[in-house]
Amino acid sequence: MSTYTAIITGASRGFGKSLAAAVSSKHPTSTIYLLSRPSPHHTATCSELSSTHTSGKVIKVDIDFNDPSTYIEVFNSTLSKIPVPSSGDEERLPPTSKIVLYNNHGTLTSLTPSPPISQIPLDINLNLTSCLTLSTLFSTRYPTSTIVNVSSLAAIKPFGTWSIYCAGKAGRDMFHDCLSLSHPSLKTLNYAPGAMDTDMQSHIREAESDKDMKVAFIKMKDEGSLVDPYESAVKCVRLVEEGKEGHVDYWDEV
Amino acid sequence: MSTYTAIITGASRGFGKSLAAAVSSKHPTSTIYLLSRPSPHHTATCSELSSTHTSGKVIKVDIDFNDPSTYIEVFNSTLSKIPVPSSGDEERLPPTSKIVLYNNHGTLTSLTPSPPISQIPLDINLNLTSCLTLSTLFSTRYPTSTIVNVSSLAAIKPFGTWSIYCAGKAGRDMFHDCLSLSHPSLKTLNYAPGAMDTDMQSHIREAESDKDMKVAFIKMKDEGSLVDPYESAVKCVRLVEEGKEGHVDYWDEV
Repeated sequence: MSTYTAIITGASRGFGKSLAAAVSSKHPTSTIYLLSRPSPHHTATCSELSSTHTSGKVIKVDIDFNDPSTYIEVFNSTLSKIPVPSSGDEERLPPTSKIVLYNNHGTLTSLTPSPPISQIPLDINLNLTSCLTLSTLFSTRYPTSTIVNVSSLAAIKPFGTWSIYCAGKAGRDMFHDCLSLSHPSLKTLNYAPGAMDTDMQSHIREAESDKDMKVAFIKMKDEGSLVDPYESAVKCVRLVEEGKEGHVDYWDEV
Repeated sequence: MSTYTAIITGASRGFGKSLAAAVSSKHPTSTIYLLSRPSPHHTATCSELSSTHTSGKVIKVDIDFNDPSTYIEVFNSTLSKIPVPSSGDEERLPPTSKIVLYNNHGTLTSLTPSPPISQIPLDINLNLTSCLTLSTLFSTRYPTSTIVNVSSLAAIKPFGTWSIYCAGKAGRDMFHDCLSLSHPSLKTLNYAPGAMDTDMQSHIREAESDKDMKVAFIKMKDEGSLVDPYESAVKCVRLVEEGKEGHVDYWDEV
């Protein structure tokens, strides 16, 4: 029986939910931890996955990455339930593919030329600091493992009205590149899942203040050229199995 | 008389102090705001510059970028003393060169493969969040101006033991690239001043946990190949006058 374990943050909706489904499909006997703020979405997603992932386990974890006074403890408590894989393990998968953190959570709030001052610390804490903290805790406990940092085109290309989001995504990519250098047995993948048909895109179509960008995103929706989150998640899970590292975009031919 | 105004953060020592001297040399009649935590260094630096910058003004501002409950108010109060340049100004310098924020402050603490968990929010708040907040406040009040983000090779190249620092510097670069796109009259320069002979280098030579890096930095010091901070500052001030933008390193031939 597979010992594959996946921890997925921001798992209640959007790409996180799709990642959970893709992991379940690829690893039917896996244990999947779904981490998200308590919400009806989170409950529904966990129930839904439990009803199909019948050969494995689905574990719901309520966690709020906006609240550093609690999320570190909750995350550590989650990790404490997952044994450290032994190096002599003779399973089919390479050790790095047996425990994977999908560091997916994040938010895109401000879509204006200058971000509101009060939003800067909130978004940096959620999108960057909490992500870095989780990856540090995880890689310390599981130095032979894989971390997927859910990245974005915004990590490598500036968008004028997405400044806080871009800064956070650039910082995440860079941090995981560093972590990979300092942890020789750790694999880190900065996966940019593409512009997907999720709630984040609805928000962009509504609130984007740059007219050209707004028109472009509405056009992508109308023409059906937004990426299907499940297809992107399947690719991501495959890249993990193949041991890919560095920044990889959904549209890259790999 | 020149209306050149420079705001320099982290101005009491190291590169910030050199920037102040370079601005004074290039613009003898300028007003220079030196922002730093209250300390004997800060007092000494301000007195020293005041004694030579006799045709201009030196203004000492005590500010602690570790404390968001005070630094925003102190920074806004500083900005309120600097008039917004009129667009019809017929001075020699282009408007963007007349008021410059040198966003220089930052810290390099952890030099270990995994950063201490408690250090992550502290360093991200200081190195990234406060820097982004200042640039946002400044560019909102002075949309026609220049911001120098003091960057680093670490903004574009990962160093295994500098993960938090690298993440912050990468985020700063990206944020200022975004700000430049969303503010057509603003110039932003991400200036990497080189490995300079400052206190930060002493700290690296003492505390760096990566043996190869430690040896390399000690060798640079012994061979005298560290950059002189004043020379680097002179180049930075020149690049501002020339309206350079994007990421420029001290060693780049520009």
